[in-house]
Amino acid sequence: MTKKKRILTGDRPTGKLHLGHYVGSLANRVKLQEKYDSYIIIADVQALTTNFEKPENLSRDMFQIAEDYLAAGIDPEVSTIFVQSKLPEIHELTMYYSMFTSVNVLRHNPTVKSEAQQHGFNDMTYGFLGYPVSQAADISIFKAHLVPVGEDQIPHIELARKIVRRFNDLYKPVLIEPEALIGEVPRLLGLDGKAKMSKSLNNCIFLEDEPADVEAKVKEAVTDPARIRKTDPGHPDICMVYSYHQVFNRNEVKEIEQACRQGEIGCVQCKKKLSGHINNLLEPMRERRIKYKQNPGLVKDILMEGTRKAQGVAQETMQEVREAVGIDYFGENRRR
Amino acid sequence: MTKKKRILTGDRPTGKLHLGHYVGSLANRVKLQEKYDSYIIIADVQALTTNFEKPENLSRDMFQIAEDYLAAGIDPEVSTIFVQSKLPEIHELTMYYSMFTSVNVLRHNPTVKSEAQQHGFNDMTYGFLGYPVSQAADISIFKAHLVPVGEDQIPHIELARKIVRRFNDLYKPVLIEPEALIGEVPRLLGLDGKAKMSKSLNNCIFLEDEPADVEAKVKEAVTDPARIRKTDPGHPDICMVYSYHQVFNRNEVKEIEQACRQGEIGCVQCKKKLSGHINNLLEPMRERRIKYKQNPGLVKDILMEGTRKAQGVAQETMQEVREAVGIDYFGENRRR
Repeated sequence: MTKKKRILTGDRPTGKLHLGHYVGSLANRVKLQEKYDSYIIIADVQALTTNFEKPENLSRDMFQIAEDYLAAGIDPEVSTIFVQSKLPEIHELTMYYSMFTSVNVLRHNPTVKSEAQQHGFNDMTYGFLGYPVSQAADISIFKAHLVPVGEDQIPHIELARKIVRRFNDLYKPVLIEPEALIGEVPRLLGLDGKAKMSKSLNNCIFLEDEPADVEAKVKEAVTDPARIRKTDPGHPDICMVYSYHQVFNRNEVKEIEQACRQGEIGCVQCKKKLSGHINNLLEPMRERRIKYKQNPGLVKDILMEGTRKAQGVAQETMQEVREAVGIDYFGENRRR
Repeated sequence: MTKKKRILTGDRPTGKLHLGHYVGSLANRVKLQEKYDSYIIIADVQALTTNFEKPENLSRDMFQIAEDYLAAGIDPEVSTIFVQSKLPEIHELTMYYSMFTSVNVLRHNPTVKSEAQQHGFNDMTYGFLGYPVSQAADISIFKAHLVPVGEDQIPHIELARKIVRRFNDLYKPVLIEPEALIGEVPRLLGLDGKAKMSKSLNNCIFLEDEPADVEAKVKEAVTDPARIRKTDPGHPDICMVYSYHQVFNRNEVKEIEQACRQGEIGCVQCKKKLSGHINNLLEPMRERRIKYKQNPGLVKDILMEGTRKAQGVAQETMQEVREAVGIDYFGENRRR
């Protein structure tokens, strides 16, 4: 058996992944999968907290995100990708956690509060209010040691730790208190200068975009509006293209800054350079994606395999949980 | 297959059942089991909403309540007695319901409010706030047509109806809107004159009490304090023993009233009469109980059998639910 520490990561499936996802978390996951025993949850049930009226997209989005993961370099031989809804054990554990988790603690959770505002919820649903409890179950049912998160997610990990500690105190210490693996989570601004790259803002470069799409999108990027001719001195600090060079073309970034300020490189050329680097990044993803596009059964097989493995772990934990709570009345656990 | 309508009833297992339970619901269930396809849930998970710190009693209480049901005349050949915690599908369905059930609706539920007050909860737990959602899942996962309840439970059935309607509208009409089967739910006052017979008030006659226990408890009952000698005219309307005659000795009740008012029957004799009638009621229960006491494995077998049957129904409903929500990605449902 592996002695690697386990991590849990994942996403709600809500559509194609874009460069913002890649830079913000996916690249890191690809790196972490070598060092850690990685479980990646496709949180389709949690997606219903905001999407319950649009279930028709769930299936499409679920396969889309799985394909994006694989294309981005998540290795199914190393990482376990699985589907939340196929593990009802998570809901069972959530139920036990909910018995000792206070409503007020959930209502005052800053992340829940700000997300509710963001969605314009005056009246939250019960499921939305409780998603951090469900998340605590996602993490702890796998006995994950670490959860790679950005700073905005720290309150959730803190709550998960408290819940696990309480469970272990009340019943039996069968669960593991997870820790946040706090990484730099760079936020990619939109090429249009908006706060972030986001599907709803329609300013995304998707991981599955073709080279020509990337070029066209970068061409539209917002640059220094004062710069009209190539020879005008530019202001890289207010140029989205420059900010993308900082992320996708680190080696050349000093050179480009200088050339821009001195009017030695034009925006057209500078954008071409950027498109080139983004396309270089995406090219291996496109190559990896081909086989999945040609054979969609492959993605399904990988998901089913990962889900089966995850089910095994979840069922094992739940047997310990049920015994700890004292509901193993018929001794089924011991019989197995 | 049976064409009988299905009903769901049940209790949280919190200790021995007493005459108050029998009069309030159990007698009715014994009657209803002939006419309806009866499912009786032992709601051990729901018991944790108030008992999460005392899980050590769960197992004892669970077997106790099952034995009480059987002793009271629930026929395991006709009724299906099952254990909630063994059906994680209920928690799964609860999760889907919680996605479109508003927190405010739950907070303003009058029954939740008054129960929270009763338990002295300033800060409710998430599980307590949501137990009506879980109850809606208990009912609808069995596609129960009817739920026998007293008036205080009507808000819960109304909520369950709303939730089911919403589910059927949002996804697919696979579930059945349950109806309340509102019966007279007589509340048995305590023999000490307190508002009800209740374990916490220590004023109970338990279904498993021996004849001598019943006699001793009835002997302590509160009667007309003004009546000192047998020949003093009594006031049946303020006598607990008389109020019990109204329930357990209907045929003689007029006679007794008259004899009491006229000082023709003494309290001692009147209490003996009552003990006799209660013991007559409990005698067949004691007889039925013998075989379960002698062979505790029998109760376990009945529970396991009922639970297996209930699991079958719940799993079938959940397959329809998953398909309706759109998460049957791998086509497992169709394969079966």
